[in-house]
Amino acid sequence: MKFLPEFSDIERAHDLIERYIKHTPVLTSQSINNITGGNLFFKCENFQKSGAFKFRGACNAVFSSDSADVDLRNGVATHSSGNHAAALALAAKIKGIKAHIVMPVNSPEVKKRAVAAYGGKITFCEPTLEARESALVKVIRETGAAEIHPYNNFFVIAGQGTAAKELIEEAGRFDIIMAPVGGGGLISGTALTVKALQDGCKVIAAEPEGADDAYRSFQSKKLIPSKNPQTIADGLLTSLGDRSFAIIIDKVDEIVTVSEEKIAEAMRLIWERMKIIVEPSSAVPLGAILEGRVDVHNKKVGIILSGGNVDLNKLPFQEGN
Amino acid sequence: MKFLPEFSDIERAHDLIERYIKHTPVLTSQSINNITGGNLFFKCENFQKSGAFKFRGACNAVFSSDSADVDLRNGVATHSSGNHAAALALAAKIKGIKAHIVMPVNSPEVKKRAVAAYGGKITFCEPTLEARESALVKVIRETGAAEIHPYNNFFVIAGQGTAAKELIEEAGRFDIIMAPVGGGGLISGTALTVKALQDGCKVIAAEPEGADDAYRSFQSKKLIPSKNPQTIADGLLTSLGDRSFAIIIDKVDEIVTVSEEKIAEAMRLIWERMKIIVEPSSAVPLGAILEGRVDVHNKKVGIILSGGNVDLNKLPFQEGN
Repeated sequence: MKFLPEFSDIERAHDLIERYIKHTPVLTSQSINNITGGNLFFKCENFQKSGAFKFRGACNAVFSSDSADVDLRNGVATHSSGNHAAALALAAKIKGIKAHIVMPVNSPEVKKRAVAAYGGKITFCEPTLEARESALVKVIRETGAAEIHPYNNFFVIAGQGTAAKELIEEAGRFDIIMAPVGGGGLISGTALTVKALQDGCKVIAAEPEGADDAYRSFQSKKLIPSKNPQTIADGLLTSLGDRSFAIIIDKVDEIVTVSEEKIAEAMRLIWERMKIIVEPSSAVPLGAILEGRVDVHNKKVGIILSGGNVDLNKLPFQEGN
Repeated sequence: MKFLPEFSDIERAHDLIERYIKHTPVLTSQSINNITGGNLFFKCENFQKSGAFKFRGACNAVFSSDSADVDLRNGVATHSSGNHAAALALAAKIKGIKAHIVMPVNSPEVKKRAVAAYGGKITFCEPTLEARESALVKVIRETGAAEIHPYNNFFVIAGQGTAAKELIEEAGRFDIIMAPVGGGGLISGTALTVKALQDGCKVIAAEPEGADDAYRSFQSKKLIPSKNPQTIADGLLTSLGDRSFAIIIDKVDEIVTVSEEKIAEAMRLIWERMKIIVEPSSAVPLGAILEGRVDVHNKKVGIILSGGNVDLNKLPFQEGN
């Protein structure tokens, strides 16, 4: 078994998961183009099943198990407070196996409900990384389930790379393709695809300033874990893994950081002008453009909108904003 | 000049406006299909330029003027507090003529800003129909602009019919096609298209219970104006016109009414499950389905989502909803 996936693994993933995933649309906005001066194409993974690109990787991990000689008869397990939890629960449900999800007690209600609705078995734990990891070890020992890591997993990374593949197949050549970076599953899969299909296209990762472990790891060329990250982009709080880091160092051209203010501004712009619902993490690449960190003038730019799971009862828009 | 448009006028409209409008996507939602038991296809006019289907009709009215022997050298004029105002301002801007828009002083700020951003000349008036009409007469007398009525206009109705045409061209045969009804421009254009292309497909209009003039007009077969309408679907407060009414009587199979509760529930469902932003008017057809007014079980149903212009500072979602 190889340590790092290649583009051929992404092609294999796409063949395998194509029947389960949604082929999400690519949207454009004249008014956002006017504001940024670029020619922007948004790949709408906010419309993906379970509400985020995470379903691609989870699906590939669950359905690749036969070829990978992994025994999933006792189900799959992970710890997650976010989109990976729901994605894995749905993928397991489709495959007809159990999903054991360790969730911090303070996870958003909407996420708990989504995991439960997909038939996931939830084990609650205290909201610390230690408690999450030890609860997961216990669940795996008791159930015999196989762990599916949210991003530092060969098949998960290969699955995430299928979003950029569809984007390029639909919209043709790009000058730049951007995605947000948290644990690095999406950006590393994206980079593998882009560099295989369009070598001249730059791959730029965008990261919140308040959770800039990927930026610092990229600059120093050594993996620096995230420490007390603070950002409204709740999908990007995690640290890189060794697999995603290795691919990023090799294939990503640049990592730029973005202020909270510009993330919020970009999110509102996407809601108002594109009439679509994205979560804050999705808005980080456009935030970087608004902040002048990426020159898109007269360039064709692909942006992967990572997800759309927000709690409509707790929106950041308020009178006077 | 004919009084009522036919499908050939819709085809002509489509040829004329295709280069200016956005060819909006058709989206589906597995989870809304599971809830309703139908196979639903949503035509996303919330993504249309200016944020609503209204741009189709306004564009056709503005660009058909040559063939219609209408002199638009002095611009166009209308009174509107809503989507027609912005749509007409944008269409006029593209054609390079002036748009004079009479708006009630209490129109939503977001609509005033949109009209101004498209270069529309706004004349404010008191928020009564009388004040609006007399202000419009004055503006037309002073400027020589041609009035473009928001729905009771031959070319506007023909333009609105192009949305259903695209829906059918993309998604094939339907059992039912639904749209909301306010002034009747959208549903009458839709009915002309559907009955020309798929005679066996039913056309069903959905209307808020609190603004049910179209329902009562349809039942009594005479045009009953709206009296003190009350609904969150702010795009559907207007009464039918004689052109739209004549087409509705001839071509629409059924008008169903919907409670405010189900309109809100449907709107939230579309936001949460489809991750798209629609205004309350767009949610009325799905509201009718949720209320059991339309049997969609195992049926292929097209729904035109009319627009996405909502004020993000004043959302109907609150803690505990």
